[in-house]
Amino acid sequence: MRIVVDAMGSDQHPAPDVAGAVLAAREAPDTLILIGDEPRLQAELARHDTQGLSIEVVHAAEAISMEDKPTEAARDKPDSSMHVGLRLVQAGEADAFVTAGNTGAVLTIATLLTLKRIRGIKRPALTAIFPHLTGRVVAADIGANADSRPEHLVQFARMASIYAEQAMGVQQARVALLSNGEEEGKGNELVKDTIPLMREARELNYIGNVEPKEVFSGATDIVIHDGFTGNIFIKSIEAAASMSGKLLKQEITAGVFSTLGGLLAKAAFARAARRLDPFEIGGAPLLGVDGVVIVGHGRSNEVAILNAIRQARRAVEGHVIEAIREKVAS
Amino acid sequence: MRIVVDAMGSDQHPAPDVAGAVLAAREAPDTLILIGDEPRLQAELARHDTQGLSIEVVHAAEAISMEDKPTEAARDKPDSSMHVGLRLVQAGEADAFVTAGNTGAVLTIATLLTLKRIRGIKRPALTAIFPHLTGRVVAADIGANADSRPEHLVQFARMASIYAEQAMGVQQARVALLSNGEEEGKGNELVKDTIPLMREARELNYIGNVEPKEVFSGATDIVIHDGFTGNIFIKSIEAAASMSGKLLKQEITAGVFSTLGGLLAKAAFARAARRLDPFEIGGAPLLGVDGVVIVGHGRSNEVAILNAIRQARRAVEGHVIEAIREKVAS
Repeated sequence: MRIVVDAMGSDQHPAPDVAGAVLAAREAPDTLILIGDEPRLQAELARHDTQGLSIEVVHAAEAISMEDKPTEAARDKPDSSMHVGLRLVQAGEADAFVTAGNTGAVLTIATLLTLKRIRGIKRPALTAIFPHLTGRVVAADIGANADSRPEHLVQFARMASIYAEQAMGVQQARVALLSNGEEEGKGNELVKDTIPLMREARELNYIGNVEPKEVFSGATDIVIHDGFTGNIFIKSIEAAASMSGKLLKQEITAGVFSTLGGLLAKAAFARAARRLDPFEIGGAPLLGVDGVVIVGHGRSNEVAILNAIRQARRAVEGHVIEAIREKVAS
Repeated sequence: MRIVVDAMGSDQHPAPDVAGAVLAAREAPDTLILIGDEPRLQAELARHDTQGLSIEVVHAAEAISMEDKPTEAARDKPDSSMHVGLRLVQAGEADAFVTAGNTGAVLTIATLLTLKRIRGIKRPALTAIFPHLTGRVVAADIGANADSRPEHLVQFARMASIYAEQAMGVQQARVALLSNGEEEGKGNELVKDTIPLMREARELNYIGNVEPKEVFSGATDIVIHDGFTGNIFIKSIEAAASMSGKLLKQEITAGVFSTLGGLLAKAAFARAARRLDPFEIGGAPLLGVDGVVIVGHGRSNEVAILNAIRQARRAVEGHVIEAIREKVAS
């Protein structure tokens, strides 16, 4: 297997991106292809023991930053590490593309300029995979499209089901629509119009609607929403988790005993914060494009990059793209 | 001032509801009118020192539970404490209605059966008032309407501005639309169609769009969204906060030092959890109906009920209903 890693992606690039690729190369006989500024990548690689590992470096003259506007970067930086990396997958010279870079840019470049949508897929879907107390949940769409129609949501559900089953090992993945209540009759027009289509889609294990709290209680394996709602959903979780942490810090440092308590429990705090981070899992697939693309968070460290690469591997091994082509798009 | 308190509202009713009303009666010369099962309320009142306080009890033969379906309860329990209490306000025999009961039921009974909408108001808006690190924010609509049109959102913004300015003392309340990004061009169709209307509404201090994290950073005094999105937003915050707490508990109790630390910091945890609770402030107004209605959370304790009554007082003193009639509905 040949996996392309955008080495100019993460906020701290190229160190975590390169280190994650080295870790991935150590655990399997795959070839890792690092894309970016070649001298910088070679210097970074020299800091690791790469003896016997299959790691290649491919030069890209440009890099897209988190501040770049996606459509402008896609148009104006045709030699960016994202363009170069995605073209390798498009040309069949690599099996998957992993990046912790600008999400909007990878979405635009993959969907419109390189891999493009699988024929028959109406809209791509950005996903997030996040942990809860007892497992993981795949959320789609979290922002590839601001507005969606019912038939788009059904395709998101079918693609996410294939991913959960073939790349994550979930059996008969449960699918739910995110709504303002579980009961029949709840939901906005989009949700209400989507319900009958979900019921008709016999290949889906549609279990009904869930509220945000049920997503965290493990009531479903997949939660489906339009990209606007999904983006608000994910960002609210992040914001509330961050706010929780800050409030707790304020309260704990306000007293002597609690300050001492906070110090004793410091490592536990850090573990809890990591577990609530929807991006700690490493990344999540961009579904619907004609190739495996895993998008990680900008804050990714080397372990997050390694996890993103592992996800790419499982998606390739699970023949996710082929299954979407056969089962969803046809 | 005469304030009606639904004594059958909170999860633990009537104890917190009655105790909150007693606290409110002690701090101002208002009359508090408790509605509910009279023998139970008299027995509960007897547990308090009510010497010299102006507290009345009005009997209601029925009570609506949290499990009741709102439309069914509104129709089938015409003598509920909500019906009886709201009819007092409708008849001009009281100035405000406070409940910690079934939100959907009070919405239905107030909007359709008793107070009804202020003439000219297209849709009512349920609000939440929640705290962040440096202040408070009013969020509307959080679920009175599953679908909204741009002109509805503008009315929500105008009503919430009046409430923030006249009942909360905010000067020139800043208004923002909740969106998937701050930048021009972000947003779903509803948000994009609402932006020009918000700009045209010169009486609004519209500052643009905000993401969830900016709501918590104090970037705005008011955040406006359709009721579906707002409901997901509020419930995601609640779910993430609750999940944070559970994860932290799991991690803290996993080790000896951290367990000790957790014990030392226990009070700080409780304070932080309370501060993140969007309902701890006591309640939030149902805007657009022809009377002051404050809806608290079912989990309300006596302090939350007291706070809800205080909000009702400020709404009456601030002439919020009159201002909405004059400035928004005309």
